[in-house]
Amino acid sequence: MKKIINDPNQVVQDMVDGLIAANPDSLKQVPNTFVVARADAPVAGKVALVSGGGSGHEPAHAGYIGKGMLDAAVCGEVFTSPTPDQVLEGIKAVDSGNGVLLVIKNYTGDVLNFEMAAELAEAEGIQVEKVIVNDDVAVEDSSFTTGRRGIAGTVFVHKIAGAKADSGAKLEAVKAVANKVVTNVRSMGIALTPCTVPAAGKPSFTLEDHEMEIGMGIHGEPGIDRTSIASADEIATTLTEKVLEDFDFSGEVAVLVNGLGATPEMELYIMNKKLHEILSERGIKIYRTYVGEYMTSLEMAGCSVSLLKLDDELKELLDAESTAPAFRS
Amino acid sequence: MKKIINDPNQVVQDMVDGLIAANPDSLKQVPNTFVVARADAPVAGKVALVSGGGSGHEPAHAGYIGKGMLDAAVCGEVFTSPTPDQVLEGIKAVDSGNGVLLVIKNYTGDVLNFEMAAELAEAEGIQVEKVIVNDDVAVEDSSFTTGRRGIAGTVFVHKIAGAKADSGAKLEAVKAVANKVVTNVRSMGIALTPCTVPAAGKPSFTLEDHEMEIGMGIHGEPGIDRTSIASADEIATTLTEKVLEDFDFSGEVAVLVNGLGATPEMELYIMNKKLHEILSERGIKIYRTYVGEYMTSLEMAGCSVSLLKLDDELKELLDAESTAPAFRS
Repeated sequence: MKKIINDPNQVVQDMVDGLIAANPDSLKQVPNTFVVARADAPVAGKVALVSGGGSGHEPAHAGYIGKGMLDAAVCGEVFTSPTPDQVLEGIKAVDSGNGVLLVIKNYTGDVLNFEMAAELAEAEGIQVEKVIVNDDVAVEDSSFTTGRRGIAGTVFVHKIAGAKADSGAKLEAVKAVANKVVTNVRSMGIALTPCTVPAAGKPSFTLEDHEMEIGMGIHGEPGIDRTSIASADEIATTLTEKVLEDFDFSGEVAVLVNGLGATPEMELYIMNKKLHEILSERGIKIYRTYVGEYMTSLEMAGCSVSLLKLDDELKELLDAESTAPAFRS
Repeated sequence: MKKIINDPNQVVQDMVDGLIAANPDSLKQVPNTFVVARADAPVAGKVALVSGGGSGHEPAHAGYIGKGMLDAAVCGEVFTSPTPDQVLEGIKAVDSGNGVLLVIKNYTGDVLNFEMAAELAEAEGIQVEKVIVNDDVAVEDSSFTTGRRGIAGTVFVHKIAGAKADSGAKLEAVKAVANKVVTNVRSMGIALTPCTVPAAGKPSFTLEDHEMEIGMGIHGEPGIDRTSIASADEIATTLTEKVLEDFDFSGEVAVLVNGLGATPEMELYIMNKKLHEILSERGIKIYRTYVGEYMTSLEMAGCSVSLLKLDDELKELLDAESTAPAFRS
């Protein structure tokens, strides 16, 4: 295991300390938790957004904390859902009395624990709503999930619901636009290499030197096919066609070409070239393109493609101000 | 070789196409070159900044094109200096009649080719100045370099000189502040794994499973020591002490913890935690911290640490507006 860490069982604590040290003016740690919040939380008069999940997907989710995006991120152990009490602490740290929206990636552990936290918070008089993101079209059920998994498309939910909350909208309206994003976003990825959870010390699976896995999840969950490594153009075609088959994207879209951790930015741009050609051929207009590492799997090599169908409301919210370190607009 | 590419000999062309496709409003390609420039170049009344070098270090340098940073980046083949005629095209594309500053990382090929391009541009009546960045304290000479290498500290030169140019300063003043950054910045890195140039198809060196190389360059040039992988705290201590020995950083600094390509953001934040502790113990005040991938080596695992000593002028320029995709302020 080649990692720049100290104690493999302390990586989340060390990471949170380093993250706060890097952003002392904009972020704070909720004492005795792995909850990271806006330094100025709770923000008066505003619906608060809380997300999170297992660590190892950085910059998701703490990198998306800032004006116009998340109010808090709850950091679980690597690839492990945070406990309900941690999520509850996140909710309590950011609620200004205007309610809290939980943005949950669809993994069984996350859904259970965030829902339990919501019940606990409601028992304390906090209004809580939730949206569940399930953008990955690769498989219907998976080792971590009932139903489709939530992957990089989640970042669009953070951005757009965050902008809506920042505009002063009420909880129901923030939830509604978050659900509109969930309805309109689809993603799919491939992996070239596995990754190693620090406390495990070895990869959870292997891929041969010539192999890639199509539709692999962001925790290494099985995909739909294992093949020889295809060209960038073939990979872009496979992923984009599967995404386009699943939903009618005619009109205008935002594109996210996401690196899983070890893939050079060069390769993501090479993917993006073909993606633009495919969408152009189909008459789909690209409003914005995001290329980079938005939702990773530690040092996994690979990428995912997300498409979000836009309307005027979503375009305006996508372009609204964000001060989050990992999504500056 | 596990890469998401098409023809290994066409990666730079494909990347530039994908980069322009992603940023059609802010970037343009100079026809028949691998020069990427601000879409609105030349910007009237402004000194222009041109940088570049071998590709494979993304987001350096094209990701730093924007208001308040670079006007153009010249993309060479992977780990190969761009030719003088390409650099000349970059200079000509962005000069508004106010002169051009070349920001050159100290590699023999880059220095020769950028200097030759400067002579050619001057022969065409364009005023050109240059700064050479040599922030890497690891080794005095290297396989690609006479004198110290230029690595991630270069990004501070882009940011600060770019802000100075954006303020309407003359060429001599922009050059002077760029040289002030060069004087005040030091960096050093370690590598855990090699990387593979696509056209070569295999790594240029190997590291055993337990090994890391201290002081390795961003093209895999030899460092100063090969040891067993140390803890994050030990690595942070080694790098920071070597940087601090080389220059008096007492006062206030900016910190850059840079990932070389395959290192998870989590590990960079773990490094940052210790770095802040070390600087705090020494009474050095941290003004800003940047953590992420700023100057990479394809899919190399590893990181570098850069410190920049600040004064009031440098702080103001560091915080000035940048619209560059890879350095939003």
